[in-house]
Amino acid sequence: MSQFDKVSVVKKANVYFEGKVTSRAVILEDGTKITLGIMLPGEYEFGTGQKEIMDIQSGELSVLLPGQSEWLEISEPTKFEVPANSSFKLVVKTVTDYICSYLD
Amino acid sequence: MSQFDKVSVVKKANVYFEGKVTSRAVILEDGTKITLGIMLPGEYEFGTGQKEIMDIQSGELSVLLPGQSEWLEISEPTKFEVPANSSFKLVVKTVTDYICSYLD
Repeated sequence: MSQFDKVSVVKKANVYFEGKVTSRAVILEDGTKITLGIMLPGEYEFGTGQKEIMDIQSGELSVLLPGQSEWLEISEPTKFEVPANSSFKLVVKTVTDYICSYLD
Repeated sequence: MSQFDKVSVVKKANVYFEGKVTSRAVILEDGTKITLGIMLPGEYEFGTGQKEIMDIQSGELSVLLPGQSEWLEISEPTKFEVPANSSFKLVVKTVTDYICSYLD
């Protein structure tokens, strides 16, 4: 499926790290919220409230998940999960297009 | 209205200038297409096919419209029109959040 249908899109962008990471909040038909985002090359750390599923659509990056010592190397479409109330580190090598889902 | 409802959002981002300008395509309920985009500080020139309405939601920038010698200075929410089959120059000073509509 190349698009989300019957959704709402919040007009105002979410902007982090001086615009090097930005996203748009989308509310799906069932009421759940996701974000569609872009990360430019750089090093970032994000905290989580809810559990998150990061769906990397394109881009090359390394990810260090909480409690892990090995970095996850991503260079093709990949999904990974981040536990609630934790944080994860990213080293983004090329412009990365992602979708983030939030789980209860 | 802080969000668009009953729309479709194309998953894949539009990426320009090595990610310094990115946008998401949104198809409104009436079938018309808009894009929600972000421009990072920098100098850009964009060409138009259809006539465009640029709705600057936030950000500071200067815009040179086709046929004009005076730059348009923008530092608050502002709309401007760009004729079809032309191009316009932008000098973006701060992260700019915009919506672009395309008119027949």
